[in-house]
Amino acid sequence: MQLHRLKLVTIIVEQILQEQIVAKARELGATGCTWSESKGEGSRGARHDVVSGGNVKIEIVCPGDVAEAILTFVSHNYFENYACIAWLSDVEVMRGARYLTKKA
Amino acid sequence: MQLHRLKLVTIIVEQILQEQIVAKARELGATGCTWSESKGEGSRGARHDVVSGGNVKIEIVCPGDVAEAILTFVSHNYFENYACIAWLSDVEVMRGARYLTKKA
Amino acid sequence: MQLHRLKLVTIIVEQILQEQIVAKARELGATGCTWSESKGEGSRGARHDVVSGGNVKIEIVCPGDVAEAILTFVSHNYFENYACIAWLSDVEVMRGARYLTKKA
Repeated sequence: MQLHRLKLVTIIVEQILQEQIVAKARELGATGCTWSESKGEGSRGARHDVVSGGNVKIEIVCPGDVAEAILTFVSHNYFENYACIAWLSDVEVMRGARYLTKKA
Repeated sequence: MQLHRLKLVTIIVEQILQEQIVAKARELGATGCTWSESKGEGSRGARHDVVSGGNVKIEIVCPGDVAEAILTFVSHNYFENYACIAWLSDVEVMRGARYLTKKA
Repeated sequence: MQLHRLKLVTIIVEQILQEQIVAKARELGATGCTWSESKGEGSRGARHDVVSGGNVKIEIVCPGDVAEAILTFVSHNYFENYACIAWLSDVEVMRGARYLTKKA
């Protein structure tokens, strides 16, 4: 079986930001996104504040450069002012071409 | 702490396929499956079509050979005609024997 | 982009245990937890019993020592008598300091 190494971007963020993050991820080269409801409590910056309800977990399988661009976008735009965590992990997929945007 | 390396198979697919995938995964050697509701939009083969609502995310922790068998089954049977993505990742568990099917 | 390697702890467990696991994880050094509803079927110890409905999936990004402490706690306290699986995986985050508890 031939497997292709890609990155999984996981973002947990306030529900209100879901549409714009998915749109931006597509613009940055992601061929697809999935999301589901999530709840959480945690720290935001220096403060520890409860962030209850209304969160969404977004997952995106994509090449490493796209993953880093998405993570950078999320970090720069939301980490300061929103309850938001995000991470990258390594995944292996079959038919890796499905996760590549056709370059113009 | 002794940790055992296993694989996590993640499958995001139309809800209608959940029961048959879980049954097949058990047949292929998985000792357990979990699943949750999911939504998504993305590409299916060459086309980009919105796949809204009615998806399920299935997760299975199992040995590498079982993981590859499940991924191959999903890829061969659903990638062409269903909205379906699937990936493998590395995980570490305690009490690894819980994830092994007893061989006859 | 500077990325920091941390661990992701994933715990799928009966809903009734969520609050105490989240509280214990914070006590052990996790700066935040997220969770979502989950369903599953699988093996519990030697028996194969269906665990339907009422599960929760808890996810925690934290340093490796905190992750191992949480996994050990969950394994020792719940593996025998509850439907519970848990695993560790490697993740990369930006602004790693957000995931560290300030030591006294």
